[in-house]
Amino acid sequence: MSLAESTASSAASFQMADHRTPLVRNCWYMGALASEVGRTLMVRRVLGTPVLFYRTEAGLPVAMDNRCVHRSFPLDKGRLEGDCVRCGYHGMRFDASGQCVEMPSLRRAPGHAKQRSYPVRERGPVVWIWMGDAAKADDSLIVDLPWLDSDAWRTVSGSAEVDANYVAMHENLLDHTHFPVLHGDAVSTEEYINSVLKVRQEGNKVFMTRELPDSPVAAGFGHIMGIPGRRVDSYSDSCFESPALHVSHSRFVESAPQGEARPFHFNITHVFTPAQQNSIHYWWFFSRDFQLDNPEIDGVLAAGINKAFTEDKDALSWIQAIKDEAVEPLPELSFAPDRPGMLMRSVLLRLANEESKYSANPS
Amino acid sequence: MSLAESTASSAASFQMADHRTPLVRNCWYMGALASEVGRTLMVRRVLGTPVLFYRTEAGLPVAMDNRCVHRSFPLDKGRLEGDCVRCGYHGMRFDASGQCVEMPSLRRAPGHAKQRSYPVRERGPVVWIWMGDAAKADDSLIVDLPWLDSDAWRTVSGSAEVDANYVAMHENLLDHTHFPVLHGDAVSTEEYINSVLKVRQEGNKVFMTRELPDSPVAAGFGHIMGIPGRRVDSYSDSCFESPALHVSHSRFVESAPQGEARPFHFNITHVFTPAQQNSIHYWWFFSRDFQLDNPEIDGVLAAGINKAFTEDKDALSWIQAIKDEAVEPLPELSFAPDRPGMLMRSVLLRLANEESKYSANPS
Amino acid sequence: MSLAESTASSAASFQMADHRTPLVRNCWYMGALASEVGRTLMVRRVLGTPVLFYRTEAGLPVAMDNRCVHRSFPLDKGRLEGDCVRCGYHGMRFDASGQCVEMPSLRRAPGHAKQRSYPVRERGPVVWIWMGDAAKADDSLIVDLPWLDSDAWRTVSGSAEVDANYVAMHENLLDHTHFPVLHGDAVSTEEYINSVLKVRQEGNKVFMTRELPDSPVAAGFGHIMGIPGRRVDSYSDSCFESPALHVSHSRFVESAPQGEARPFHFNITHVFTPAQQNSIHYWWFFSRDFQLDNPEIDGVLAAGINKAFTEDKDALSWIQAIKDEAVEPLPELSFAPDRPGMLMRSVLLRLANEESKYSANPS
Repeated sequence: MSLAESTASSAASFQMADHRTPLVRNCWYMGALASEVGRTLMVRRVLGTPVLFYRTEAGLPVAMDNRCVHRSFPLDKGRLEGDCVRCGYHGMRFDASGQCVEMPSLRRAPGHAKQRSYPVRERGPVVWIWMGDAAKADDSLIVDLPWLDSDAWRTVSGSAEVDANYVAMHENLLDHTHFPVLHGDAVSTEEYINSVLKVRQEGNKVFMTRELPDSPVAAGFGHIMGIPGRRVDSYSDSCFESPALHVSHSRFVESAPQGEARPFHFNITHVFTPAQQNSIHYWWFFSRDFQLDNPEIDGVLAAGINKAFTEDKDALSWIQAIKDEAVEPLPELSFAPDRPGMLMRSVLLRLANEESKYSANPS
Repeated sequence: MSLAESTASSAASFQMADHRTPLVRNCWYMGALASEVGRTLMVRRVLGTPVLFYRTEAGLPVAMDNRCVHRSFPLDKGRLEGDCVRCGYHGMRFDASGQCVEMPSLRRAPGHAKQRSYPVRERGPVVWIWMGDAAKADDSLIVDLPWLDSDAWRTVSGSAEVDANYVAMHENLLDHTHFPVLHGDAVSTEEYINSVLKVRQEGNKVFMTRELPDSPVAAGFGHIMGIPGRRVDSYSDSCFESPALHVSHSRFVESAPQGEARPFHFNITHVFTPAQQNSIHYWWFFSRDFQLDNPEIDGVLAAGINKAFTEDKDALSWIQAIKDEAVEPLPELSFAPDRPGMLMRSVLLRLANEESKYSANPS
Repeated sequence: MSLAESTASSAASFQMADHRTPLVRNCWYMGALASEVGRTLMVRRVLGTPVLFYRTEAGLPVAMDNRCVHRSFPLDKGRLEGDCVRCGYHGMRFDASGQCVEMPSLRRAPGHAKQRSYPVRERGPVVWIWMGDAAKADDSLIVDLPWLDSDAWRTVSGSAEVDANYVAMHENLLDHTHFPVLHGDAVSTEEYINSVLKVRQEGNKVFMTRELPDSPVAAGFGHIMGIPGRRVDSYSDSCFESPALHVSHSRFVESAPQGEARPFHFNITHVFTPAQQNSIHYWWFFSRDFQLDNPEIDGVLAAGINKAFTEDKDALSWIQAIKDEAVEPLPELSFAPDRPGMLMRSVLLRLANEESKYSANPS
């Protein structure tokens, strides 16, 4: 039975996360671009908490609560001194672990005065942060994204603040049936709507793959690859890697090449960090393995991606606004093509429930 | 015993609606001017719900929830196709009854996918909508307003968004004692304050009538009728017709005419549609049966009415703001001249209570 | 044992007011500058309630609710008539006690219609108001501030709206250890941080005194007194007089004068009136007993004070914003130098608790 024929009624038995589900905390979220974290104090709200970022003199990224444990003064209004941050109110000085090492009005620094600090890891262009139970901050959970830091790939990137919950963002990415409707013909063809998908769940990850042999290339992609209007064998997958991350890979090969048939690859990395329950920091990285030094293609890609992502952002913001304004929970109907998203939402609900006791006391 | 002498203490025994009382849903509200509803998608918030309006190719008005049953995308961001609306996210197509008739990613349209649609009726310049229990949407409950659509009358009209609850709007209209204080001498005379009123309730309607023989004409009316400074026999009534509608009729005849004594009539139609609990769409229609083709009088009337209605709007918005900011319920004192409004408020409370079970689950 | 050596753990046993503690009502708060209250209607929000101020023809200040007891119309949109205020909606007229003395639509003014009025007292440049239980409005509770109204003193003053709770404002004033950090060297020296304080509580007042013999004068003060860079014997006290008032006195004498050793005195009067739970009207009065007729010193003082008070205002607003945005109560750590503020906060909590029954029904 193809997905398109499966019944919606079976889908309705899923218990799924929505925009009211507590945010998952035990996850490596993107705290910042590595280039944003330096020798000046920087603040970003992550999972509702204002977090202070800076880099030690040795270059290591640091993250801690941006609220002094004494009288809640925002630490970013103080100043960086060596590897320490000094509060601008009473001058308490905290080291990179958050430990108070000096209080001017006391002879000895109070040993019990410690800022909450957060595990951070730098990987290529990304500084990851762990806002949950520090004991569970396993480095092996950081998803490898080698193309972001490789000479074999060229990446165009951008970011946006989106007024939507991450559930809707993830669902949007696991759904290709909206491409021709919302985005038009630049990034998809009509065949996307009815092509057969393979969906599988592995642990907390949800994969969706599509193979489309001998089919017209989407206009935007055809232009970039230099094969406009040709027919291609295409393969793509989309993966819900974690609450913070969705990665997709695409491969196009000309179906009937005139010369040598070289494949074209695109890796698209979507990174979401909830600022609050229903708003996110969104970073995207669009990587290709050809025409690495062609700035014209960079520009065409950036323009096309910005158009499509703005369409997504607008759609999800409109939907979030409708939910925010509603006095009561709004029922929604689901259909067979929604299944990848529904699997992801059931994972998100389970993860949230598993840490609900923790979430009830996040600080 | 005149009303003015009746005691306030008897009045205080009324149980009355106020700005916190649930809005009555089983009522024909004005959804839009007929001229606003056409072949482009239009949205207006009615009783808290964003409603999509459009007209079929045959010209019939249509109203349905502006939120796709699938993933809550706002339908007005999609497009009109014949008599159907197509969602801009996944392309679901709904007919004028709200029934889904196509979903591009499914072979068959899902029969259980249906937008909530609302009964609508077009009468003269008004499209009425019924947001409550559709089984109770009786056409005979639509109040006849023939002067809005008659060659024997000339109507000047306008509209405003008012940040106030409809209870206060209705009470303001059933109270003429504020005219000289709030509006000055253009629309009333000092005698309005103490003139004897007849008040009666018939079912859910509240009527108030006043006869004022041989009295100076109010300045604004005198000017329009061409009898400034003269004495007139005047009659007027004001009627709370429904939660959506207040209608008043006025008749003036010169008390001592120099020639033929012709009566002058004004019908004033006030239409309220709650957008939310404490904000309303307000339309007014000021109709006269003389000088039908005199645009100068249209202009004078529009200016005068706008001045008075702005005074009302400001007053009620200020009062609503005070109530909104109050931490606790604010007590109010009522007096004998408040009796028409208090009767209306007791009707509104009863209507709200009768459908309270429904109101608790409006969707 | 010096304060700096006392342990923080003993301090932690205090139960203290914070920004969520109900505001104390039984207190003389500053309603307005005497110069603000005149023959035009003026409104200011005090403890959450919009209060109408005006002056009778005999010059006495009047304060009453700015909300007509009839239909909640804001009285400041009406007009002053002799010693009375007339509502702009139905023309009810209230005398200076709040008693309705006329209602145009009634033959006799309703005796039970009475605005809530508030005790007010004028003392020098200040009109004090009592928002709590009127039976407890004891004139002797008004703190005497003779320097504000004396020819022997010269006062520079200002005001600000601050988005912070009064607890934090008071705590900031009972804490001199932040001076060098937040304000720099204009108003303090490094020695302020570690100087020994004497702290004492008398009833509901908390006093803090410091004597600093033979120490460098703070730059700003040295400039004003004409003894820059000299060493001085300084004395200062700071007193939490009431929820509405903090007063400090400073005295400087040159330690090794070249001629006659004249003392310099500064009295600083801080007045707080909560507008809402977490916002205040703040007035400050900076008085000196020398160079009374030197406008250049006025200017230098005003600039310096504005700088320091803006630093305080910014700090407290940032802290309040952090508290407002927090989903849960934020823990804070206290240390020995916080003891004066902690004593004050325990007083504020006790006062709030004592009148909690009243606060639950303030109107």
